[in-house]
Amino acid sequence: VYAKREGEALSAVSVILGSDSDREVFNSLSAVLNELDISFEQRIISAHRTPDILKNYIEDAEKRDVSVFIAIAGMAAALPGAIASITTRPVIGVPVALKSKIMGLDSLLSMVQMPPGIPVATVGLDAGRNAALLAAEILALSNETLEKKLKAYRDTQRNKVMEKDAAFKEE
Amino acid sequence: VYAKREGEALSAVSVILGSDSDREVFNSLSAVLNELDISFEQRIISAHRTPDILKNYIEDAEKRDVSVFIAIAGMAAALPGAIASITTRPVIGVPVALKSKIMGLDSLLSMVQMPPGIPVATVGLDAGRNAALLAAEILALSNETLEKKLKAYRDTQRNKVMEKDAAFKEE
Amino acid sequence: VYAKREGEALSAVSVILGSDSDREVFNSLSAVLNELDISFEQRIISAHRTPDILKNYIEDAEKRDVSVFIAIAGMAAALPGAIASITTRPVIGVPVALKSKIMGLDSLLSMVQMPPGIPVATVGLDAGRNAALLAAEILALSNETLEKKLKAYRDTQRNKVMEKDAAFKEE
Amino acid sequence: VYAKREGEALSAVSVILGSDSDREVFNSLSAVLNELDISFEQRIISAHRTPDILKNYIEDAEKRDVSVFIAIAGMAAALPGAIASITTRPVIGVPVALKSKIMGLDSLLSMVQMPPGIPVATVGLDAGRNAALLAAEILALSNETLEKKLKAYRDTQRNKVMEKDAAFKEE
Amino acid sequence: VYAKREGEALSAVSVILGSDSDREVFNSLSAVLNELDISFEQRIISAHRTPDILKNYIEDAEKRDVSVFIAIAGMAAALPGAIASITTRPVIGVPVALKSKIMGLDSLLSMVQMPPGIPVATVGLDAGRNAALLAAEILALSNETLEKKLKAYRDTQRNKVMEKDAAFKEE
Amino acid sequence: VYAKREGEALSAVSVILGSDSDREVFNSLSAVLNELDISFEQRIISAHRTPDILKNYIEDAEKRDVSVFIAIAGMAAALPGAIASITTRPVIGVPVALKSKIMGLDSLLSMVQMPPGIPVATVGLDAGRNAALLAAEILALSNETLEKKLKAYRDTQRNKVMEKDAAFKEE
Amino acid sequence: VYAKREGEALSAVSVILGSDSDREVFNSLSAVLNELDISFEQRIISAHRTPDILKNYIEDAEKRDVSVFIAIAGMAAALPGAIASITTRPVIGVPVALKSKIMGLDSLLSMVQMPPGIPVATVGLDAGRNAALLAAEILALSNETLEKKLKAYRDTQRNKVMEKDAAFKEE
Amino acid sequence: VYAKREGEALSAVSVILGSDSDREVFNSLSAVLNELDISFEQRIISAHRTPDILKNYIEDAEKRDVSVFIAIAGMAAALPGAIASITTRPVIGVPVALKSKIMGLDSLLSMVQMPPGIPVATVGLDAGRNAALLAAEILALSNETLEKKLKAYRDTQRNKVMEKDAAFKEE
Repeated sequence: VYAKREGEALSAVSVILGSDSDREVFNSLSAVLNELDISFEQRIISAHRTPDILKNYIEDAEKRDVSVFIAIAGMAAALPGAIASITTRPVIGVPVALKSKIMGLDSLLSMVQMPPGIPVATVGLDAGRNAALLAAEILALSNETLEKKLKAYRDTQRNKVMEKDAAFKEE
Repeated sequence: VYAKREGEALSAVSVILGSDSDREVFNSLSAVLNELDISFEQRIISAHRTPDILKNYIEDAEKRDVSVFIAIAGMAAALPGAIASITTRPVIGVPVALKSKIMGLDSLLSMVQMPPGIPVATVGLDAGRNAALLAAEILALSNETLEKKLKAYRDTQRNKVMEKDAAFKEE
Repeated sequence: VYAKREGEALSAVSVILGSDSDREVFNSLSAVLNELDISFEQRIISAHRTPDILKNYIEDAEKRDVSVFIAIAGMAAALPGAIASITTRPVIGVPVALKSKIMGLDSLLSMVQMPPGIPVATVGLDAGRNAALLAAEILALSNETLEKKLKAYRDTQRNKVMEKDAAFKEE
Repeated sequence: VYAKREGEALSAVSVILGSDSDREVFNSLSAVLNELDISFEQRIISAHRTPDILKNYIEDAEKRDVSVFIAIAGMAAALPGAIASITTRPVIGVPVALKSKIMGLDSLLSMVQMPPGIPVATVGLDAGRNAALLAAEILALSNETLEKKLKAYRDTQRNKVMEKDAAFKEE
Repeated sequence: VYAKREGEALSAVSVILGSDSDREVFNSLSAVLNELDISFEQRIISAHRTPDILKNYIEDAEKRDVSVFIAIAGMAAALPGAIASITTRPVIGVPVALKSKIMGLDSLLSMVQMPPGIPVATVGLDAGRNAALLAAEILALSNETLEKKLKAYRDTQRNKVMEKDAAFKEE
Repeated sequence: VYAKREGEALSAVSVILGSDSDREVFNSLSAVLNELDISFEQRIISAHRTPDILKNYIEDAEKRDVSVFIAIAGMAAALPGAIASITTRPVIGVPVALKSKIMGLDSLLSMVQMPPGIPVATVGLDAGRNAALLAAEILALSNETLEKKLKAYRDTQRNKVMEKDAAFKEE
Repeated sequence: VYAKREGEALSAVSVILGSDSDREVFNSLSAVLNELDISFEQRIISAHRTPDILKNYIEDAEKRDVSVFIAIAGMAAALPGAIASITTRPVIGVPVALKSKIMGLDSLLSMVQMPPGIPVATVGLDAGRNAALLAAEILALSNETLEKKLKAYRDTQRNKVMEKDAAFKEE
Repeated sequence: VYAKREGEALSAVSVILGSDSDREVFNSLSAVLNELDISFEQRIISAHRTPDILKNYIEDAEKRDVSVFIAIAGMAAALPGAIASITTRPVIGVPVALKSKIMGLDSLLSMVQMPPGIPVATVGLDAGRNAALLAAEILALSNETLEKKLKAYRDTQRNKVMEKDAAFKEE
């Protein structure tokens, strides 16, 4: 568990889906968190349909020392901004393009173009994996074990490219 | 005053700006509301910076029988959606393109692409005047005086075009 | 029936399709109107192919106290604007992206960017459900039963999210 | 006068502005019509504010053997389509980008993406000059004098480019 | 045959495809031309691969009194502009979105944004049918039989909408 | 100084400009860092013109325990991605729209659409202030003083909105 | 082999894929290089995952007198720019739209909008074939045999269009 | 003079403007060519207004061993493609965004999205300087003096960045 401080079972990361239709992006995200042994909790909370639950949950999670929030949302994706308006912990937004009628431009602009004062760290369209890695990079600032795992992850990526290259250049 | 029911001094419409930089759009909007003698109240409330004030204000306004909410906002314009998540009264959204770095595409898509269940009635970019008229059309459903004023307003518009046409065709 | 005033069998809402290819969006819309027991009439009228029928129909419907018009249209979607030019009742536009060659940008901009004086309340791409709910919100201003149904509808939505969340967080 | 048939003073072309704010584009257009001695009439008629005048005017103009209609309009530019729905004479649309909040994308798509059956011949953004030339090309099909003028116009254009080239290549 | 002047077997219209991959759009176009008994010739000529053939063909067709040219092309669709640079007869451009990697925005802008002096009458994405009707409208200016057929075509369209409406409103 | 670990004078944040034309965005960013007493170092390093300097600098900065990197860049903004390929520390990207010929869409997409494995935390166009706050939120995870300052900063923002609202609602 | 100078077995062209998911574009590219008997080497090297390998490889390839580099990449396609920052040999970029969530706009803008001083010769979306031909045109400047082959290739293209035209016009 | 072969006074590069309104982009381009002592000739030739002059000129220039063609054009920028259809020498296209009504998207897509077989090497919007450098890189493949100048140019760029960095980091 990569929780910031000692204590009972903690989640380092909270992953919140705006809708269960965002599950596919979540799967690529949770796979990376699991691979890096990062503890996380997962919720489906709608900024528009259950705003009070969102507020209570985020405030509680902040008290329980959840370090990073990741919001996965499509369309007019107010979720990451709504989270960021409640907490001063880092909030990562994953705009969802899957099933989007307009290539995810709606969720991308709804996340990245936040007003001054309330930042959202936006990653690419459907980029669950990068959201998980960004959260890991943030947590690794105070966790050397995780930093090592991240570097190992990079090495694995690097090796995969090298292997493919080795095969490809001899084709 | 075009309030839905009898009572003390009521606002039929609530106009909420996400920021005082949206003032220019507000001016074109309030001019039409005044011209049609529609009572309204005006606020600057940020969905991200003062979300609790927003919640209290909308709930209170709903109880005071404010009929229509108009939100003017730019960038990742979460304001109309946030209002719509609190009340079941009609919410009109005016996306702001003035000073936008991306032609208002961010605020337009953030408003119009609402998730199922939480509608926002979106009008054109910086279209304060049309937002006021749409609110008036809604109020006029239960107010015949206002309906007549709206029809007179249309006639005035029509006459202006006809006058310009009369001059233009003889140039 | 949620008609504004007493009388014989009235439609509260008129739903107009620009083409029968917009049927899929209509289905999601009519399902919500039926669920809320809102009386409506349904037509296929083309702004370009049967403009005189449109004019006669809208004027007649306005006399029959139809309160809200909903237009579903794709491509250069002139339909909602054409309706709005005939009546001062609220007109809701649903831009159709299904089968659009350009992601519905054509119908979205053709609806939302109305000239000053002739507002169209635009909802999201293919957002039949939200158009129905927006119409219901307008009608509910003078109908407490409908207002209660709308709040119940919201509660149902809220409960669905909560149920999914309850299952998801324990996965 | 390049009217299709003999008779009293006829207009070969009708130029209709959706608003007097489209005057600047009109000026570039009328200059070319005048240069080619093409008779035309000019009107300001709004598809949304004076639709009945539009209908009467187009039907009358068609009877008076106006051959080509040119519509100049911005925003959700329904004007050329509205004209095309009334007449089977060719309709040329000029989308206006000047003062547009969204680069004229709204008027361009509102004109060019017409539904099957109702064509609009769309030219470039603010392209008054090309609209005039396209009208002239259509009229020239039954008017050899105009055809010669068009070819002379092309020669003049060609010569201007050649003169600039001659100077430029020696700089 | 709707040729402008009497003579041997003439084509009123020339339809040119930039590539045989544009065949699907051509089919919708030729169906309308055939339905209206408009004589036409059909070619596949590339502005980039067979420019000299294009030049010879257009000059010859102009001499043979072909009245209207229709170009169907995708990608950087230089074809209609290349034709328009050779002839002063009206040139209609059909931008192809089918198989386009960028929704036909490339061909649309390559056609509609012609430089001053060389107009192209652009119709909608893949709008073969409207291109045929626009050509027919131009030819009908000097052919009353065709004008009647066009009006009959409109009536048929109108009737189809009315039939669908009649069925739909009783569902 | 908000450095992660004890030691000599440390920079918590490194701010890198791709060009000195990005200065205006930097100014809004450095103002916030200064206001929050966050130590930072500032560089102009081009991913394309001085790539070796970039590599050396980032590796050195990582060793010196710089916690967060912020890259400000326009056009094909490779800078944040290049930094992220060298370090596993969090990298924040600020796409520059000022002077952009295409509204900053080039730099926004060049930053946010990173390949899997190399995340960049992208903020809004020219959003120097939000980049600084995001960096502060990350640093505050292990620095309670900074966390308090951030909450105070939020309160100040909130108060400013409330003051403006108080004046505005009485106008 | 179309290598610039005499020597042992040389590659005239180096083709580098950012990922093996770009294979489909590569296939259309290599087919043309093979057809023109242009020697080339092929690699999979990631600008972000294996940047050091990229640097070593490009510097080595430049010494081995590889004349032209072709980079095929999607998303935030930093690869061609990264190559161009290492060598002064011409670099051709092929933006990949296949599987892109945003129609390849990300890779197109990431390649074509290079900062001043570091040019990338960008071809169309997924345009492997044109990238190969552009490389061939560059190599042909110092190789008359290749120039002849290129002209023959053009003739073949021309003939194919003519054959299709011959069949089509008689349909 | 960096001409490919020995002979009388040769131009290595031909720079062609589609219109004299593209002069500003030309100036940044010619400055670089002059700085690198690359001989060039400059013309204003319109693909649409003087197509025959274009054909004669390009064929003649190819015979005179002009190595690289650079076309600067705006709007539906057919010029580089038209050149590429005449010669098999490399053609560089510079899309012009200055004064464009649509941010140069028209000229960018008109250039980069060439059909298979006719490549255009497209550089950035208004990127005259990069076009010149790309031409220089191509010429340098057979000219070692130019290759050295290019490397020196890069060093100068690098030094400028370093100087600015040196000043900036001490501010």
